[in-house]
Amino acid sequence: MNKAVVLVSGGLDSATALGIAREKGFECYALSVDYGQRHRSELTAAQNVARSLKAHAHQIVPLDLTVFGGSALTDQAIAVPHAGGEREETIPMTYVPARNTIFLSLALAWAETLDCRDIFVGVNAVDYSGYPDCRPEYIQAFEHMANLATKAALDGKFLTIHAPLMHLSKKEIIQTGINLEIDFSATVSCYQADAHGRACGCCDSCAIRREGFLALGVVDPTRYR
Amino acid sequence: MNKAVVLVSGGLDSATALGIAREKGFECYALSVDYGQRHRSELTAAQNVARSLKAHAHQIVPLDLTVFGGSALTDQAIAVPHAGGEREETIPMTYVPARNTIFLSLALAWAETLDCRDIFVGVNAVDYSGYPDCRPEYIQAFEHMANLATKAALDGKFLTIHAPLMHLSKKEIIQTGINLEIDFSATVSCYQADAHGRACGCCDSCAIRREGFLALGVVDPTRYR
Repeated sequence: MNKAVVLVSGGLDSATALGIAREKGFECYALSVDYGQRHRSELTAAQNVARSLKAHAHQIVPLDLTVFGGSALTDQAIAVPHAGGEREETIPMTYVPARNTIFLSLALAWAETLDCRDIFVGVNAVDYSGYPDCRPEYIQAFEHMANLATKAALDGKFLTIHAPLMHLSKKEIIQTGINLEIDFSATVSCYQADAHGRACGCCDSCAIRREGFLALGVVDPTRYR
Repeated sequence: MNKAVVLVSGGLDSATALGIAREKGFECYALSVDYGQRHRSELTAAQNVARSLKAHAHQIVPLDLTVFGGSALTDQAIAVPHAGGEREETIPMTYVPARNTIFLSLALAWAETLDCRDIFVGVNAVDYSGYPDCRPEYIQAFEHMANLATKAALDGKFLTIHAPLMHLSKKEIIQTGINLEIDFSATVSCYQADAHGRACGCCDSCAIRREGFLALGVVDPTRYR
């Protein structure tokens, strides 16, 4: 059984990515990062997701990104913006500098020690909030770099970064997850969920998620506060 | 004054890289990672190096890479090998999976929040112990990826990864450092230095360093135990 490292944030997208990796027959190693995120209940959600989708192992790596500051997700002094008209024009304050690069680097380290050649990440270029590190050209560049970075690659064991949600709309991601029987009520997408994992309903991430369920015409299982 | 993030490990090479960045007129932000390395006194050395070379700030980020295992530098169960004939043929057990990729990713995050477009790293392809992430093609690939990863790059603020030691021999690095008046007795290169920063004298890193001083014909200021 081939192994895959899957980045699991606790949100809807990465849960679907984990479901897809499992469906493809991989033995899954879920990786989450405790980076000082405002939405702490994401990590509880990540544990629930990893367990319910039968990840072989789940590692939560503590890495305090608040030391660098610069994001509404890690700096309590910066407010999480409400969903609004500017979504497609500017990169929001919820952007965390180099986050996906750091997370993929950690996944790369674990993959190498596991002798694993596949990494799954739930990034998405359609409803992506304008984040630069969610674009296909970024993922390709990371994969190219990763295949020069490791002892494994020197030995001819090349790595593939799978981004199976890249070109799906939120509606299509939700449909995929439903087909995989993923319980989305256990996932937390909200940027400022409360300690019980209940969503605010008004941030960008909540808005995009809610629109996805609406567009699909299914009941939104999100727990709002 | 332009800013630069400089990766500072506490060793001879990164101290020289910091000296070069300063000589070029950058305001330097030294970044070290407490990754669970066996050679803890490296971090004390990093603090001394940052202070003596007048870094504007020094950040030590805790990131426990021992959770991934797989290296003699982070796994107490794996012995640090003695310097020997196999140096050029195989990648040694002291290789830490994806280490430079993780460190450069953290530097990328800090650079972006500092509005800084320059990162310095003391990697070297000549006396590089066979590490894949010390080669010029790797550094180029990282830079390319980094310039797709950030909001800054989307705004046209492109980043340069400087690896000024890349093509220097250890002898030439030491000569460069001496010209910059760097006190190498404060640096720790040994893979298993003791708590006082005293070197073992018998690991690969000690051997390469010692040969450098010998080749240059200057007194080796390394403190051996």
